[in-house]
Amino acid sequence: MTSCYVDHQLGASVVFKCENLQKVGAFKARGATNAVLSLPDELAPRGVVTHSSGNHGAALAYAAARRGIPCVVVMPHDAPGTKVRAVRGYGAEIVPCEREQREQVCRQVVRDRGMTLIHPYENMQVIAGQGTVALELIEQTGPLDLVVAPVGGGGLLAGTTLSVTALSPQTSIWAAEPAVVDDARRSMQKGVRQPGVARPKSWADGLLTGLGRPAFEVMRREQVRVVTVTEPQIVQATWDIIQHTKQVVEPSAATVLAVLRVCAAEIAGLRIGAILSGGNSDFSWLEDPALRKD
Amino acid sequence: MTSCYVDHQLGASVVFKCENLQKVGAFKARGATNAVLSLPDELAPRGVVTHSSGNHGAALAYAAARRGIPCVVVMPHDAPGTKVRAVRGYGAEIVPCEREQREQVCRQVVRDRGMTLIHPYENMQVIAGQGTVALELIEQTGPLDLVVAPVGGGGLLAGTTLSVTALSPQTSIWAAEPAVVDDARRSMQKGVRQPGVARPKSWADGLLTGLGRPAFEVMRREQVRVVTVTEPQIVQATWDIIQHTKQVVEPSAATVLAVLRVCAAEIAGLRIGAILSGGNSDFSWLEDPALRKD
Repeated sequence: MTSCYVDHQLGASVVFKCENLQKVGAFKARGATNAVLSLPDELAPRGVVTHSSGNHGAALAYAAARRGIPCVVVMPHDAPGTKVRAVRGYGAEIVPCEREQREQVCRQVVRDRGMTLIHPYENMQVIAGQGTVALELIEQTGPLDLVVAPVGGGGLLAGTTLSVTALSPQTSIWAAEPAVVDDARRSMQKGVRQPGVARPKSWADGLLTGLGRPAFEVMRREQVRVVTVTEPQIVQATWDIIQHTKQVVEPSAATVLAVLRVCAAEIAGLRIGAILSGGNSDFSWLEDPALRKD
Repeated sequence: MTSCYVDHQLGASVVFKCENLQKVGAFKARGATNAVLSLPDELAPRGVVTHSSGNHGAALAYAAARRGIPCVVVMPHDAPGTKVRAVRGYGAEIVPCEREQREQVCRQVVRDRGMTLIHPYENMQVIAGQGTVALELIEQTGPLDLVVAPVGGGGLLAGTTLSVTALSPQTSIWAAEPAVVDDARRSMQKGVRQPGVARPKSWADGLLTGLGRPAFEVMRREQVRVVTVTEPQIVQATWDIIQHTKQVVEPSAATVLAVLRVCAAEIAGLRIGAILSGGNSDFSWLEDPALRKD
């Protein structure tokens, strides 16, 4: 998807990869599907489990349903109703728990029922699956000067980096991160993985997780640049994408446009791929007082 | 665009034609472009004028800019800022006036400056242009049992009816109309064109205009069925399209899904084309208390 408005504003040529149109409304369907389809036949029938209450939970439920195997999603009691219904809609079993005990309950399910844990981003099959976003992007657009993707736990970013480095080594890779959850930026700066931010609050609710170990290793090896953006920049970019591309995106996805704007002076004339990671939003960000709807 | 959710819910196979992705965000770009490109060379340099402050105003400005001819849009003083900026953004001249005097001021511009009036829906070139929506739809989908399009002034509906009747005479045609502006329904019922509703108020703000004469004639000849839908049905359909197709649509567009739901018992198993007429929304409909976001 392209936008005359965006290209004109940035003086660059931007192709959006629309993962909002992916199954379950986010790129997460790719990693979960790859992980589930990669399970050996002797393990698969016991099913899969995860503790992600975000898009990965729904994605794993979707993937398990496709292979016809059981799926458990461990979710905190206070998970949003929309997330619970999405997971249940794909036929998965929900195991409720206290928010702090998710990982523990998850391990218990693995022990008791022999299910395989599919971690949302510290899993190489998941990362490889997310890497097909950039694979398709490059196949569809041809040579690019720059690819920008959001970073939270880093599954998408690691997959993107692996694909771009292999297929198009001359292409730069930037990670878009909310400034209030800037552990990826600090990790890259120090050369040592930094802990995630405690109780982070950002409109980009898909990017609150601390950077995972495999993603950090890949990002450090390839010297990926992390650019942080503020909350007003994120909500404004979300609104502008919605108005000008008519694609429903979640704030986490719009961080990539926010980054391009912050770095406008550096990207003039470039051919850029920007990954819109998902489109699952309740539109509560519309109420942010910083948003200018002009 | 298709949606598993919609198909499953309706027990039918629905293809959405996404005019929200059209230039200026609505099908109106088609009619305006056809009208402007059809102008004879001796008239074109004097330019075009209209009094529509909705999507047609922006569409005419866009089309005139493409041909490189002047364009005037007569707009009431209290027109929304977004509409004014859209028209100005395409380089058209805005002539402000009192709301009640729009047509009169428009005629004055025609007399004084020799511009050609391009009426938003009572113009055969405009109707022919809008007819390319259904033309493309049928080319893209193959045989359909039913096509549903929204009706306001009737330009889109008349164009749709002409295309479908010519290319696929076995296909039924339904018009989707807000119940609070039901002059098309009453016109078809009485066999005589009924006046539009005074000061109508509907979330479907693109469908407030009374049915135009040419559209009525076409609809009567082909016995198009008009189905009305309530405001709660319209806002719910808008939300559901946004959530399940990730396409930004305006409430006027979502009337087609609302109609399919109202008539669910009649459409089981059918192959249906549904025209999403546009995607220019300020999302104020999200505040409707009848909206259930589950």
